[in-house]
Amino acid sequence: MALEQNFKEYSVAEFFKKNKQMLGFSGKTRSLTTIIHEYVTNSLDACEEHNILPNIRVELDEVGDSKYKVVVADNGPGLPLSLIGKALGQMLAGTKFHRHVQQRGQQGIGAAGCTMYAVLTTGKPVHVITGYKNKMVSCDISIDFKTNKPKIENVVESDSDFHGIIIEAEFGDVKFDKGQYGALEYIRRSAIANPHLSISLKTPDGNLVSFTRTVDKLPRKPKEIPPHPLGIKSHDMLEIAHSSRMPKLSQCLTTDLSRFSADKVKQLKDMLPDIDFSIPPKQLTWSQAEELVKAFKRLKWIAPRTDILSPIGKEQITKSLSAILNPEVLSVAERPPKVLHGGIPYQVEAAVAYGGGIKSKGEIMRFANRAPLLFDTAACAITQVAKAIDWKRYNLNGLDNDPLVVLVNVSSTYVPYTGAGKQAISAEEGLVDEIKNAIQEAARGVKNHIRQKKKASEIEKKRKAFLRYVEQLSTDLSYLANEDASVIKTGIQKIIDEKFGGGLNA
Amino acid sequence: MALEQNFKEYSVAEFFKKNKQMLGFSGKTRSLTTIIHEYVTNSLDACEEHNILPNIRVELDEVGDSKYKVVVADNGPGLPLSLIGKALGQMLAGTKFHRHVQQRGQQGIGAAGCTMYAVLTTGKPVHVITGYKNKMVSCDISIDFKTNKPKIENVVESDSDFHGIIIEAEFGDVKFDKGQYGALEYIRRSAIANPHLSISLKTPDGNLVSFTRTVDKLPRKPKEIPPHPLGIKSHDMLEIAHSSRMPKLSQCLTTDLSRFSADKVKQLKDMLPDIDFSIPPKQLTWSQAEELVKAFKRLKWIAPRTDILSPIGKEQITKSLSAILNPEVLSVAERPPKVLHGGIPYQVEAAVAYGGGIKSKGEIMRFANRAPLLFDTAACAITQVAKAIDWKRYNLNGLDNDPLVVLVNVSSTYVPYTGAGKQAISAEEGLVDEIKNAIQEAARGVKNHIRQKKKASEIEKKRKAFLRYVEQLSTDLSYLANEDASVIKTGIQKIIDEKFGGGLNA
Repeated sequence: MALEQNFKEYSVAEFFKKNKQMLGFSGKTRSLTTIIHEYVTNSLDACEEHNILPNIRVELDEVGDSKYKVVVADNGPGLPLSLIGKALGQMLAGTKFHRHVQQRGQQGIGAAGCTMYAVLTTGKPVHVITGYKNKMVSCDISIDFKTNKPKIENVVESDSDFHGIIIEAEFGDVKFDKGQYGALEYIRRSAIANPHLSISLKTPDGNLVSFTRTVDKLPRKPKEIPPHPLGIKSHDMLEIAHSSRMPKLSQCLTTDLSRFSADKVKQLKDMLPDIDFSIPPKQLTWSQAEELVKAFKRLKWIAPRTDILSPIGKEQITKSLSAILNPEVLSVAERPPKVLHGGIPYQVEAAVAYGGGIKSKGEIMRFANRAPLLFDTAACAITQVAKAIDWKRYNLNGLDNDPLVVLVNVSSTYVPYTGAGKQAISAEEGLVDEIKNAIQEAARGVKNHIRQKKKASEIEKKRKAFLRYVEQLSTDLSYLANEDASVIKTGIQKIIDEKFGGGLNA
Repeated sequence: MALEQNFKEYSVAEFFKKNKQMLGFSGKTRSLTTIIHEYVTNSLDACEEHNILPNIRVELDEVGDSKYKVVVADNGPGLPLSLIGKALGQMLAGTKFHRHVQQRGQQGIGAAGCTMYAVLTTGKPVHVITGYKNKMVSCDISIDFKTNKPKIENVVESDSDFHGIIIEAEFGDVKFDKGQYGALEYIRRSAIANPHLSISLKTPDGNLVSFTRTVDKLPRKPKEIPPHPLGIKSHDMLEIAHSSRMPKLSQCLTTDLSRFSADKVKQLKDMLPDIDFSIPPKQLTWSQAEELVKAFKRLKWIAPRTDILSPIGKEQITKSLSAILNPEVLSVAERPPKVLHGGIPYQVEAAVAYGGGIKSKGEIMRFANRAPLLFDTAACAITQVAKAIDWKRYNLNGLDNDPLVVLVNVSSTYVPYTGAGKQAISAEEGLVDEIKNAIQEAARGVKNHIRQKKKASEIEKKRKAFLRYVEQLSTDLSYLANEDASVIKTGIQKIIDEKFGGGLNA
């Protein structure tokens, strides 16, 4: 039977090999940025999880036509030999997938995707040197596409007190670009959103660009918590119940969900007399889960804990934006945490910076859990919201006309991306409003300054117009009044200065 | 060691459960359209592969809050019991993944993704009735997320001469919408791009919308061919060689690649004296593959066979657009097939339709292998190109101002989508130019008509302006010349009619 013979299973590695663009490997510039993004993200997550102030060094060398050698080195905890393969040579394996904790990486594909791209475009494995708990390992990693298993070769082990990871790999079909989609801009934005990070980039032309940390403290460590009852879906409830270690449904609710008191269980019992809350949670049926979830929505809940997320922070954004952009005026807004459907807490920060060192018009800097999003701009909720803001209300002429930077960072245990490339945030209900609120709040902070600035600029314009006539008028009056011209000139200037307060430069 | 304990592998089903939006399940309207898309696409592919003129019936019923019952029935070949699970309850399994043939579905996720969404949002399996080779099977399919294996229950087998598949399933978190992103528009566009398809939709409010085929012939069947040497990458060459069944490299080249003659091998031998073309292809190294691929680019190749792709066709587009849109003027362009990097042939068709039954302004209808693309509009190369066209050159005022439909269909054995949602085509080099050429060619076809129409409209405007004065002038002249006003009026009207050709309505 032809149909049956043709029916084949294939591995997730083969899937992403054929669909590289889903992982951000489309176009030479973007592919290189994706590589830097995946490694830097992993380094940051690992350093923060182990309370290490991150130092990251990136080196790029052009070694052929569209071919670059990439080195990324960090001072993180490193990896033991037993995990190197899984971390770098196997897709859908990692520490991050099943956890309810805010981290940049979530999907356990990133670094393995880079290994895939190296092998696909150069035929060479990725060389890894890592120090972990006084052991240093150096080896070559590639990936067996048919089985999605790592291939580890040339393993050399030694004792060393070095900790961290150094990745050395060659990639084809990539290009270094200094523009808005390039590796340099990616690193610059990483520095903006991570004031505790020191990062340097050696560009292919031999220049060294360094961003030194402006804050010596690690960001608040995100905490792992059970999901919040609000917004949880029936299937989530069923899954939580079926994997619960509690003997009774009532205990499953109070233990496996956040903010669930015994009193809440009591209220539920009154609302749902047909459900027996003493059954083992494994016996929960779909329709019971559905009833529970419906009932959750009718109860009042305390908002999710605010200490589980790790936003950049108002003070930190102010420091890093001031250091890197040097704007004339800057306003930062931090919204309170909210819950996205599925019981996932999230928090939005925004900054609006104007003038001074900012030369570009309406640059939108998008971040998710402090990782810069450079691509898929139009598809991103942040872009859509920022463009829809009525900037005139804030005395601005709009994104296309003012020297303006709008920064938005969405922190969450689970960021709803529109694609596996993790470059655009999906326009989910609620989240869109929060982004809008955050930008508007930040914009209000610059509104008065800009109004005063515009007023001052108008006054200055008038003063200059009057001053243009002073010379001629002094000469004419001097002739008519038979008085020294310079005396008359000083007099007129004094009048103008009094009226216009000496101008802006007085 | 905490790090090692935390390191987990997970299944591709769990991955997509957590990243539903990658499969198009984001937002209620889009989720329902995705479901219809996946089933209709599978039905069309199956019917065409088995030379059956497709009849598809879609029924939607609202059965609860954001909950719909969906029935999709086709007259295709059906599925044997042994494959139902793999086709509908397992991700990354299917007939389409490894084949170099143009089909709508490519990734072996679609229908299994729908099963996932049904289970996630209602807790219920998908009910399937299928007739295949005189056997009828009815069963319930769900998916085990932990293992990515299908669960098949309530199997009933019987003899029957029915062939086809009937899917009956309930989905939560969906919404029927008559707008541009909804299921109805999806079906309307499917009918436009598939003039050989008869499809009906029973909407939740009980209306029946039917599109009857305008062409009684199946489209040319796409052929499966080996990749074209132009644009092939080193890794592809290595993989082709390593999986070749030929004893010698030279035979691998002439057999496993298209358009590869013995003479081409001879030319290669001269160019690459260091490569031994009599080695078993399995011994090909990366660097040899790289040299071969570089050498391919320096040879002259015959373009890929034109009969392997299955575009809609000029005549077919004309028929279906005329029947469904009834435009005032219509022009269709079919470009010759080209090769995308990776040796993948593709072909672009475009149509520009203006006025008449078209009321909407600048609607862009995007298709890939005749499947409508409704979402991720801004990210799609077709949208970007259509918007960048200088419409004034074609006497049009631009997409936002004219009653205009621009249709583009990209046919390929492998369409480069920007995401797993398969809704936007990646702006790959070459492809962008072809889309531009196709739209411009179609636009040139309406240019003259629109110029004449605009000229005629201006003449008519002038004529009307003159006619407005006729009454007054006749009365005045009648008074001055003492002649009957009606005689004068007839005379003046005659002069105007002669000058302006009696106007458009004469």
